Amino acid sequence: MAEDRTRTVRALLDAVRADGRTALTAPEGKVIADAYGIAVPGEEPARDVDEAVAAAARFDGPVVMKIVSPDILHKTDAGGVIVGVEGAAEVRSAFHTIVDSARAYDADARIEGVQVQQLLPKGQEVIVGAVTDPTFGKVVAFGLGGVLVEVLKDVTFRLAPVDADEAVSMLDSIRAAEILRGVRGEAGVDRWAVAEQIRRVSELVTDFPEIAEVDLNPVIATPEGALAADIRVILSAEAPKTRRTYGRDEILRSMKRLMQPRSIAVIGASNEHGKIGNSVMRNLIDGGFSGEIHPVNPKADDIQGRKAYKSVTDVPGEVDVAVFAIPARFVASALEEVGRKGIPNAVLIPSGFAETGEHALQEEIVAIAERHGVRLLGPNIYGYYSTWQDLCATFCTPYDVKGGVALTSQSGGIGMAILGFARATKTGVSAIVGLGNKSDIDEDDLLTWFGEDPNTQCIAMHLEDLKDGRAFVAAAKETVPKKPVVVLKAGRTAAGAKAAGSHTGALAGDDAVYDDILRQAGVIRAPGLNDMLEYARALPVLPAPRGDNVVIITGAGGSGVLLSDAVTDNGLSLMEIPDDLDAAFREFIPPFGAAGNPVDITGGEPPSTYEATIRLGLEDPRIHALVLGYWHTIVTPPMVFAELTARVVADFRKRGIDKPVVASLAGDVEVEEACAYLFAHGVVAYPYTTEKPVAVLGAKYRWARAAGLLGGGR
Amino acid sequence: MAEDRTRTVRALLDAVRADGRTALTAPEGKVIADAYGIAVPGEEPARDVDEAVAAAARFDGPVVMKIVSPDILHKTDAGGVIVGVEGAAEVRSAFHTIVDSARAYDADARIEGVQVQQLLPKGQEVIVGAVTDPTFGKVVAFGLGGVLVEVLKDVTFRLAPVDADEAVSMLDSIRAAEILRGVRGEAGVDRWAVAEQIRRVSELVTDFPEIAEVDLNPVIATPEGALAADIRVILSAEAPKTRRTYGRDEILRSMKRLMQPRSIAVIGASNEHGKIGNSVMRNLIDGGFSGEIHPVNPKADDIQGRKAYKSVTDVPGEVDVAVFAIPARFVASALEEVGRKGIPNAVLIPSGFAETGEHALQEEIVAIAERHGVRLLGPNIYGYYSTWQDLCATFCTPYDVKGGVALTSQSGGIGMAILGFARATKTGVSAIVGLGNKSDIDEDDLLTWFGEDPNTQCIAMHLEDLKDGRAFVAAAKETVPKKPVVVLKAGRTAAGAKAAGSHTGALAGDDAVYDDILRQAGVIRAPGLNDMLEYARALPVLPAPRGDNVVIITGAGGSGVLLSDAVTDNGLSLMEIPDDLDAAFREFIPPFGAAGNPVDITGGEPPSTYEATIRLGLEDPRIHALVLGYWHTIVTPPMVFAELTARVVADFRKRGIDKPVVASLAGDVEVEEACAYLFAHGVVAYPYTTEKPVAVLGAKYRWARAAGLLGGGR
Repeated sequence: MAEDRTRTVRALLDAVRADGRTALTAPEGKVIADAYGIAVPGEEPARDVDEAVAAAARFDGPVVMKIVSPDILHKTDAGGVIVGVEGAAEVRSAFHTIVDSARAYDADARIEGVQVQQLLPKGQEVIVGAVTDPTFGKVVAFGLGGVLVEVLKDVTFRLAPVDADEAVSMLDSIRAAEILRGVRGEAGVDRWAVAEQIRRVSELVTDFPEIAEVDLNPVIATPEGALAADIRVILSAEAPKTRRTYGRDEILRSMKRLMQPRSIAVIGASNEHGKIGNSVMRNLIDGGFSGEIHPVNPKADDIQGRKAYKSVTDVPGEVDVAVFAIPARFVASALEEVGRKGIPNAVLIPSGFAETGEHALQEEIVAIAERHGVRLLGPNIYGYYSTWQDLCATFCTPYDVKGGVALTSQSGGIGMAILGFARATKTGVSAIVGLGNKSDIDEDDLLTWFGEDPNTQCIAMHLEDLKDGRAFVAAAKETVPKKPVVVLKAGRTAAGAKAAGSHTGALAGDDAVYDDILRQAGVIRAPGLNDMLEYARALPVLPAPRGDNVVIITGAGGSGVLLSDAVTDNGLSLMEIPDDLDAAFREFIPPFGAAGNPVDITGGEPPSTYEATIRLGLEDPRIHALVLGYWHTIVTPPMVFAELTARVVADFRKRGIDKPVVASLAGDVEVEEACAYLFAHGVVAYPYTTEKPVAVLGAKYRWARAAGLLGGGR
Repeated sequence: MAEDRTRTVRALLDAVRADGRTALTAPEGKVIADAYGIAVPGEEPARDVDEAVAAAARFDGPVVMKIVSPDILHKTDAGGVIVGVEGAAEVRSAFHTIVDSARAYDADARIEGVQVQQLLPKGQEVIVGAVTDPTFGKVVAFGLGGVLVEVLKDVTFRLAPVDADEAVSMLDSIRAAEILRGVRGEAGVDRWAVAEQIRRVSELVTDFPEIAEVDLNPVIATPEGALAADIRVILSAEAPKTRRTYGRDEILRSMKRLMQPRSIAVIGASNEHGKIGNSVMRNLIDGGFSGEIHPVNPKADDIQGRKAYKSVTDVPGEVDVAVFAIPARFVASALEEVGRKGIPNAVLIPSGFAETGEHALQEEIVAIAERHGVRLLGPNIYGYYSTWQDLCATFCTPYDVKGGVALTSQSGGIGMAILGFARATKTGVSAIVGLGNKSDIDEDDLLTWFGEDPNTQCIAMHLEDLKDGRAFVAAAKETVPKKPVVVLKAGRTAAGAKAAGSHTGALAGDDAVYDDILRQAGVIRAPGLNDMLEYARALPVLPAPRGDNVVIITGAGGSGVLLSDAVTDNGLSLMEIPDDLDAAFREFIPPFGAAGNPVDITGGEPPSTYEATIRLGLEDPRIHALVLGYWHTIVTPPMVFAELTARVVADFRKRGIDKPVVASLAGDVEVEEACAYLFAHGVVAYPYTTEKPVAVLGAKYRWARAAGLLGGGR
C-alpha cells in the first residue's frame, strides 16, 4: 500500500518535472491526495460540456466547476471558478463562462477542460500545509482558515512527519483552539479527521523531499469529518545542500577529548604580551590545567617556560586539542598539520573568515577538516572553558567557580557577558564555549556532550541560527529528559519576509517556526539575555517539582498580589487550598491574616510564623512548590528570614523532601545579602522583584513537563 | 435637539422603571437608538398578522421578524426570531410560528406582537457596547463580532464619552484592525460610520448613568455604513455611591502642606525604643527636617529632647501634618482633635482598619475627616518621605538621596522594596509615599501634586486598585504632558469573572479595561515591580526624544542582533540609514564591519572608533536616539568606554544637542562600575542585559508620544 502510493506519486512528479513545471494542476493534486488518503471532495475532469453535465449528475447536489490549465495557477483571478452550479443547464452555461474567462485572462493558456467537484459542506475552515524551512526542513502547519486568522497569524508548526497524537495536539496549539471544540453550544469538529489530514500531508512531504510546499486551503472541518477543498503542491527548484555529519558515538568521542583533554597544543603561542597566543598560554597555565600544554611557534624555543615546537607535528605523543592563535591566512596550512598529526579538535580563535566576508577561506578549512575528520570549534571565537578540568583555553580571564551549568554563545560579546554575570553572581559553571561562525561544531554536538557530562546539570545556549535544526531537535530530545536546556534565540525579528508560493509559506515566519519547534523539543526559550543567564544560574539550584500545586506564603500582602500575577503569567497553578490545609495554615497566622492562596501571614510577624508556615508547606504532600514573599521588618530581619528558611529547607532535604522553593525579598539593602545566602543554600531568591523568582520557577516547571516528570506530557 | 433626545429617553426609562423592569424591549431599544441617532435597520411593530404584512411590504426585500415581549429576554432561545422572510405568505406563516414558539417557551409571557425589521446587508460584524466599570464608570467597548473574536477577546475600551477621533482610534486598537481596512483586495468598512455608533452609545450612557450596559451586537459594517442589528439596554438596579471630593486647588493646597510642611505633630511620640512613635520621632530628627517637630503624648513631658504635649490641640501655632503612631482604637478621638485644631493632613500609620476587617472603624474615621476637611493618608502605611525637605515621617530608615523621582505604593512591602532598590542604585528621589488602605488620599491627589512639584521629574506608582478611576485619568492627563507617570498595576489576574448581563460585560475583564484606559491616559504601565523601579530610576536620566529614528551602534555583533530584537519588541523604529549617513559611518569602521543599522563597528576596535561613531550619531539631526552595545576588550576597557561616552554626551549637551543614549555592556565584572559611571553621567546603562536599556528607552518613547512630543499623538 505504502509502496503503491510512493510509486504513483513518484511517477506523477517525474512527469511534472519532465514537463518543466514546479506547480501541480488540480487533477494532479487529486491524484496525490487520493494516493495519500488526504480527504477531498469527489471530483471528475470534464474535457467538454457533455462530460461536465454527466459528472455533475453523478454527485448529489450542487457542484463547483474549475478551469484545468497547466498555465493558470491562480484560478480565481482568471475567472476560472464557479461555485454552486446545479442542474444540466447551469452546468452547461458555467462551462462556457469559465473557458471564455480563462481565454480572456491568458489567450495562450493551454486549457484542458473543467474540473467538476462535489460542493463542500458548511463547516469551520482550517488550513493544513507543509513548507520546507531552511533550518528545520519539512515542517507541517495548522491554523484556522479565513482572512481573520491570516491577519492574526494564529498558526502552529511541527517537524514532519508527525504521528496522530502530535497532529491532534496541533489543534490545541493555536490561540483560537476553543473554536474547534465548539463554542456557544455548537458541536466541535472531528478532531481526529483534521489530525489525519495533517498527518498525511506530513508523510507526503517526508516521502518526497522535492515537494517544497503543500497547501490544503481551506479544509472544511465539521463534526463528521474534514475535507480539503483544494490541494496545492509546489516542487522545489533545487536540491538541498549536504554536509558531513558525525554519528552520536563519534561526537561523544571527539567532544570528550575536547572537554576533558590530556594534551593541548597552542599554535601561535607567544612570549609577547598583548598577543592572543600569549593570553591563551598564560590562561592555560594560570588556570591550573593539569594536562600537557605544548606551545607551537616556529620562531621560539621556549614559551612561558615550556619547550616550543616548530610544528604541531613535532609535538610528542597524542594531542587532544589544537588551539589556534594565528592569523586567518595561516590557519589552513596549520590545520593540514593538525590533521596529519591526528588531532581530533581544532579550536579556531582567529577571526577573518565568513564573518568578514572571507567565505572561500572558511570553505577551504572546512574541506581540510572534513578530509581529516578534525572537528572545528569556531572560527572567530574567544575559546572555551572547561572548569572541572581547570581548563581556560581562551584569551579572556580565567573563571574557576565549578558548578552545574554549561553555557555556550554564538557571539563573543555574549560570551563576555556570560563571564561577567557568572563572576558577579558566583554562578557554578561546568563549561563556557564560544561557537562563533560554527563552521563545524554546532549546538547539537555540544548538547550531545553536555547531555552525557555528569558535571553538567543545565545547559544554556545563545544562538542566532542553527546549522541543522533537525540534529538540534534530536539532541535536545535526547538531553531534555535528563537536564534542562535553555535557549536564547536571537534575531527573532530580523528575518524579514521570505518569498513564499503558498499561504502556509507566508505564515511561516522564521521565528514562529523556531518557537513552535523548540518548544516541541522541550527546550526552555529565554525571552532575553538576562533571563537566559538567570535561568542558567538558578535552574540547577532548584529540585524538580513533583506536581502542579504552587503555594505562595507571604509576609507582604502587596507582594502576594504581584506574586499571584507572576504565577499566572508563567502558566503555573495556584493550588486551591483544601479546607483542612487552610485550617492548618490559619493556626499559625493572625486572625486578620488571610489563608487561602496566597497565604498572607501579615507583615508584623516573628520568625516563628515564617518558619511554621514554610514547614507546613514543605510537610504537606499535596503542595509541590513554594513561593515566598518576605517583607523586611525589625521583628524578622532579612538574614534571620534567610537563615531560618535555609535551615528548614535543609531539614526537609535530609528527610528526603525536596521541593522547589523560590523567594522574593522586599526590603532595604540587607535583603541582597539575604538573597545571596539563600541562593547558596538552595533557595532561589531575588531582591526588589516579584517576577524573577517566579519566572525561574516557571522555567523549571516547563522543563519538568517537557522531561515527562509531570502529567500532561509536553 | 439634544434636549429632545434626553427628554424622550428620560420618559422611556422612567416608564420602564415604573414597570419594575431593568431590561428594555426591542421597540424600546429602537426608540432610544432613534433618539440618539444610532443607525439601525428600518423596523415597525406589528400587533397582528395584517400589520406585519403591511410593514414588510414597506421595506425593500426580505425582513427579519422577532417576538415582542417584556418577559422574553433571549428571543432566539424562545424560537422568537425568523430571518429572511419575504412576501405576504411567508410573513403570515412566520408570524404564527413565532407566536406559537414563544407561547411554548413561556406560557405566561405577555406577547405584544412581532417586530418586522429590514434585513441587514452582508458585511463585517462588529460589536459596540458600553458597560459600567466599578473603577472607571461608563466605558465604551469595540471589537469584531462573531464567535472567533469572543474566543480571542480582541476588544478595546475607552472612557465614555468619546469624541469622533477617539472613537475612530478604537478601530485601530484591536489586534485584527487590518480586517476593517480591507484585506485580500476587499474594500474596508466605513470607519467613520462605525465610530459614530461608538460615539453615540458613549453619549447615551453618559447622559443616563442608570443605563448599566448597552450592546449593539452585531453592528454590520460595510463600505457604505454601519447598522446595528440589535440594541440591548440594561438598567442598573442600584445607584452608585458618592464620596466627598476635593477640587484641584484644594488638593494642591493641602498636598503642599503635606509635602512641604513647616510644623509636624507626632501623635503617640515615644521615648521607648522599638515603638513606632519612637522611630518616627527619631527619623524626623535624624533625617534633618528643619521645621518644627511636636511630640504629642499625654504621659510624657519631654520626648527625645523636645517638649511633649498632652493633646494636639495644645501644640502652639499652625500645624501642617499630624502623624499618627497610636493603636487603631485611639485614632478616632485623636482625629477629632486634629480636626478641631484645623490640621489639614493626618498621616495614619496604624493598621487595624479595613485591611483586618475593621471596616466600621475605618468608616468612622473617614466620616470624622470629611466633617473637618482633614485629608487622610493611610491608614496602614509606613509613612512618607519628602527628601527635598529632609523629611522622613516613617518608621523605616531615612533616605536622603535627593532627585527627581516620586514613588508611591499601596503596600508596605513594596514600599520597603522601593527603599532598598533606591538605596542600592543611588536613585535620586523626591518622595516616597505609602498609601495603604487609601481611606481618603488616593493616587489622583498625589499625581496632582507631583505634577506641579518642580522637584519631581517622574512619578512611579504601585497600585492594586483605584478608588476613582476617572479622577486618576484626569490627573494623569494633566500631568503626563509635563512628566512621565509609571504605573505598576498589581492584581491583573485576580479579578475573576464578573456577573455580566451583556456580551460587552463578559468581555470587560478588569485588567483589559485598566490596560486600555491607563494607556489612553498616557500612563506607562510597568509589566512588573522591577521594571517599575528601573523605569523610575532611569526615565529622569534620559532627555526626551525628538523623533522616531533609533540607531544601534555596537562593538559586538551578537549584542546588535539582541538589541534589534529589543527595539522591535518595544515598538521602536530602527532608522533606515540613508546612503550618505551610511557612507559617513563606514569611514570609521573596518571594511568587514557592517554599516546599516545596527552599525557594527566590530569587536577589536579602539576607543576612537566608539567615539567617532557616537559623535556622528549625536551630530546627525536625522538620528533621534542611540542604543550602544559595548563589548569588553583589552583595546577598549569598560571604564575607557564609559568615560569617553559620558564625555561625548556631555560635549553635545553643552552644545544644546541632547538625545537619549542607552547602553548595554557585555563584559567581565568591571562593566558594572562602568554602568554606574554612565548612569551618573546621563547615559542609561546596564550590564549583562540587552533588554533593560531598550525597555527604558521604550518607556521614554511611550511617554514622549503620550505627552505629544512626537508625531502621531497618543
